[in-house]
Amino acid sequence: MLDCIIIGMGPCGISCATYLKRANKDVLVIGKDLGALSKASEIENYYAVGKISGEKLATKGLKEAISLGINCLHDEVLAIEYLDNGYKVITKKNSYESKTIMLALGKVRNSFNEAKKFEGKGVSYCATCDGFFYRNKKIAIVGYNNYMAIELDYLLNLTKDIIIFTNGNKMEVDNKGLLVVEDKISSFNGENKLESITAASTTYDVDGCFIALGSQNAFTLAKQLGLEIKDNNLIVDNNYMTNVPGIFAGGDVIGGLLQVAKAVSDGAIASINIINFLKGVNNV
Amino acid sequence: MLDCIIIGMGPCGISCATYLKRANKDVLVIGKDLGALSKASEIENYYAVGKISGEKLATKGLKEAISLGINCLHDEVLAIEYLDNGYKVITKKNSYESKTIMLALGKVRNSFNEAKKFEGKGVSYCATCDGFFYRNKKIAIVGYNNYMAIELDYLLNLTKDIIIFTNGNKMEVDNKGLLVVEDKISSFNGENKLESITAASTTYDVDGCFIALGSQNAFTLAKQLGLEIKDNNLIVDNNYMTNVPGIFAGGDVIGGLLQVAKAVSDGAIASINIINFLKGVNNV
Repeated sequence: MLDCIIIGMGPCGISCATYLKRANKDVLVIGKDLGALSKASEIENYYAVGKISGEKLATKGLKEAISLGINCLHDEVLAIEYLDNGYKVITKKNSYESKTIMLALGKVRNSFNEAKKFEGKGVSYCATCDGFFYRNKKIAIVGYNNYMAIELDYLLNLTKDIIIFTNGNKMEVDNKGLLVVEDKISSFNGENKLESITAASTTYDVDGCFIALGSQNAFTLAKQLGLEIKDNNLIVDNNYMTNVPGIFAGGDVIGGLLQVAKAVSDGAIASINIINFLKGVNNV
Repeated sequence: MLDCIIIGMGPCGISCATYLKRANKDVLVIGKDLGALSKASEIENYYAVGKISGEKLATKGLKEAISLGINCLHDEVLAIEYLDNGYKVITKKNSYESKTIMLALGKVRNSFNEAKKFEGKGVSYCATCDGFFYRNKKIAIVGYNNYMAIELDYLLNLTKDIIIFTNGNKMEVDNKGLLVVEDKISSFNGENKLESITAASTTYDVDGCFIALGSQNAFTLAKQLGLEIKDNNLIVDNNYMTNVPGIFAGGDVIGGLLQVAKAVSDGAIASINIINFLKGVNNV
């Protein structure tokens, strides 16, 4: 039986695995892909790393973990079952048993097909990450609710030239004096990068567009396990443990700042608490 | 007036500065050196970076910040003063004004364990703060360099009965005619408060002791500002703000996991709260 199975191979999962491995724990990382980070066009705010594509950073993270001897499997977790002394993780290809579980599941950003065509080419899902590239430029933001309001607030530090597209939704928050287009978006246009957005036969020129439709993630696992969820986030205590003893969580899936820096830190701190938890388990 | 002055150029300070700069804030980083990280022989658990010396990692972090156009000064902060609309930071070479302050002061690892036992019970780190309580009493001062000389000068206003302990260091400054003990301190003794200090099997009776090792540290500044301190950590709220509005702190100085990962995350999350705080300031 393993000490910990970490589900997710993004920054939180890999950081947690690294600390556990270095503390001599038997650890297994399972992920179906490299997560949201690998889709970020450019990361420029992760300490000491400089400008790097999300995919490169995620790949580097995984590679470093493997070089430390950490077993990292590309596989998809289908279910987690309770055992008397731990958990059984059932994947598409196999099953594994472990005393603890770390859920580093990440968070999928909501999008729509038109926007997807220009991901990394003028379309961004994170004001904090990419807003800097649009200082004093003309940008669009797609959203209508509280989540959009927070992203908009951040972008207003950088430019006042912003159009809000609700994409057919009713605007639920203050428009901050900006133009609001409530029509459904019919197309995103551009040659190599986003140049304009069309809604109800009007075309608006933009240098970039931020999608702020909120985020969702696969909470199927969490629900199977009876984990507490609030506002689309897994609830954890100060030790990063969920309401189920032995099941921990960190990174985007627990909410807060959705950034590599925080995910890496969550993974590190959670690992210490997992190690402490294992001490208890081993004493039984 | 700047938006934020960040004191400390380790992982927390630089991470915070990066986020603020990218949110278009006027930010200045001041540090007297690269901090504790630069003294770590090897870091192997910081996500996606692989094995690297602490000094290399700290230098890389600073370099990346400078390449983003962040102003990073090697200078030493001597004092922070309150202004009507912010703070004045006085350094050895200059002074600067800012709406907010971020204290990313780190933590000196090789602290003085013997002294710690009597903190608040006869051991003080600030002559200006506590010297008054020792008027005409017999006190010790632990130190050997310029910083000690400044503290000693202040104390000599209050009492002439002072013993200097260099704790194994070579005395670098004038002893002002006082007894200098250059042996390593072996113990601080006392029942409920400090009563004597033993070095090289000689015991010296004292009423109190001032630790003046190295330069101005976190707690001297913190005490000047009236910041809450507990168990050798600055106390911050969920927004990384201290008990003084506009003064934030993160990284090792607030305690918790003393790791690069956490420091970087603290800096990132604090930056978002600093940006929000600045909105309020600007609306006044």
